[in-house]
Amino acid sequence: MSYSDGFAERNAAFAATAFPGPQPLPPAKHIAVVACMDARLDPRKALGIEIGDAHVIANAGGLAKDALRSLIISQQLLGTREIHIVHHTDCGMVTFTNDVLHAKLVSDLHTHAGDNIDFLPFPELEASVRDDVAFLRGHELILKESKIVGWVYQIEDGKVRKVVEA
Amino acid sequence: MSYSDGFAERNAAFAATAFPGPQPLPPAKHIAVVACMDARLDPRKALGIEIGDAHVIANAGGLAKDALRSLIISQQLLGTREIHIVHHTDCGMVTFTNDVLHAKLVSDLHTHAGDNIDFLPFPELEASVRDDVAFLRGHELILKESKIVGWVYQIEDGKVRKVVEA
Repeated sequence: MSYSDGFAERNAAFAATAFPGPQPLPPAKHIAVVACMDARLDPRKALGIEIGDAHVIANAGGLAKDALRSLIISQQLLGTREIHIVHHTDCGMVTFTNDVLHAKLVSDLHTHAGDNIDFLPFPELEASVRDDVAFLRGHELILKESKIVGWVYQIEDGKVRKVVEA
Repeated sequence: MSYSDGFAERNAAFAATAFPGPQPLPPAKHIAVVACMDARLDPRKALGIEIGDAHVIANAGGLAKDALRSLIISQQLLGTREIHIVHHTDCGMVTFTNDVLHAKLVSDLHTHAGDNIDFLPFPELEASVRDDVAFLRGHELILKESKIVGWVYQIEDGKVRKVVEA
């Protein structure tokens, strides 16, 4: 049995023993988290977020620009009023450039369809957190009354540290 | 103390008692999950995914189109070869239209900056899962050898059901 063939079985165990019961659609704590998709960062576990508490958005890097559609929906339709950005040490986003990835797509997949995609790599971790918080703080579609906090998660020891609050 | 003021304290408990130790950057099970950001859907818990196993991407709806940048990075730079799409019952994405949200942004925020954003609402749950799997299956930047599976998570009872595999 492959790992993903086990999803159904492991889900049955979750539903039987750990499912907390049905809950309201809007996040109970009025919070949205934007975290990296990295396999080693589980933002709910890392911050102690229970099912029902918060929207958790995740993408390559945990980048606010890529999360804007989701954040606007979260704020406008579901009432969240805090945004927490979580980037992390040893992130893959500092290991490549757009030029490198564009060339790899052409070489491996024989298409130029990716040439205009900005993969949003960043050179420096704490700067990326500060940039994302500043991007949201200044964005005209993000509510001015939002609290916006930037964190770094340390892949080495599981600890978070706050980088900036705006 | 606010809920998010407690993140640091809850994180300290996680790091001390539940952190599994440092792990390699590439997902151990070569899997990427794309799930909805909904507060009630924890894709790792729902599918039994441990820290280190899989990339977990999340956005409003769990939509493949919005996850494309992340999926390409996941496949090209970090070796994932399966994609699992997870949408869910009672999703907020079926409750609005672009026109409604565009008008709300103009009315509440007094800006037309959102007029050209496609918020990607969808009218029907299972169709959205099938559409997303088909979108990825046919996309020239997604590896042809990828296994792509679509699921529905049931907010009512915590169970998943497989909708389509391609």
